[in-house]
Amino acid sequence: MSKLQEKVAALPAERCCPALTERELTAEEAELTAAMFKALGDPVRLRLFSKVASHPDSEACVCDIADVGVSQPTVSHHLKKLKEAGLLTSERRGTWVYYRVEPSVLAAMGHLLTPTPASAQVA
Amino acid sequence: MSKLQEKVAALPAERCCPALTERELTAEEAELTAAMFKALGDPVRLRLFSKVASHPDSEACVCDIADVGVSQPTVSHHLKKLKEAGLLTSERRGTWVYYRVEPSVLAAMGHLLTPTPASAQVA
Repeated sequence: MSKLQEKVAALPAERCCPALTERELTAEEAELTAAMFKALGDPVRLRLFSKVASHPDSEACVCDIADVGVSQPTVSHHLKKLKEAGLLTSERRGTWVYYRVEPSVLAAMGHLLTPTPASAQVA
Repeated sequence: MSKLQEKVAALPAERCCPALTERELTAEEAELTAAMFKALGDPVRLRLFSKVASHPDSEACVCDIADVGVSQPTVSHHLKKLKEAGLLTSERRGTWVYYRVEPSVLAAMGHLLTPTPASAQVA
């Protein structure tokens, strides 16, 4: 687990990441959550992440997700960034490395973008 | 409206941005949505966004949100980036510029991070 992931996993979704429409983020919360958004802020990284996330059990062998039109070292670099941001975990099994979406982190990010009832009325 | 915002607003949330756990994104979808995540991938920008989003009516005068510990030109730069990504709109009224969260864009991003029933079971 990355340090960021440990921080996120240690907090309930509400404390880690209040809905952005609920109250302004503190500097520390913004630091923590911006790192997760940044990790998804690259088209290739986002495709890799969606490939893992949409695989059965939200887990995929690196051999199944590498066809995103970039070289293998670039794929490895992007997967490393996703791990550092706490969005993926990995495990080696025999020849291959398997990547898995961290469900608690996905839930925390989803919570961030959930409109609160007051803001939903305005919308 | 930015070009990105026009694209997003023209599509229902489901078509713009399928849940990341539902299926892998196409290259075009990834391009569109990574730009929105990237805009939130900076701590100062994220704090500014949360300040606007959590204001009554999801709208705030620039005079109310500028105290994030950076210079006024830096605040302007970040607000411009958020507008370009289609996350905020702005309107001048007298002396001040007012910023507003685009609810359809927030909803679309929230939809992206919503676990599908299958992945929720796994979680």
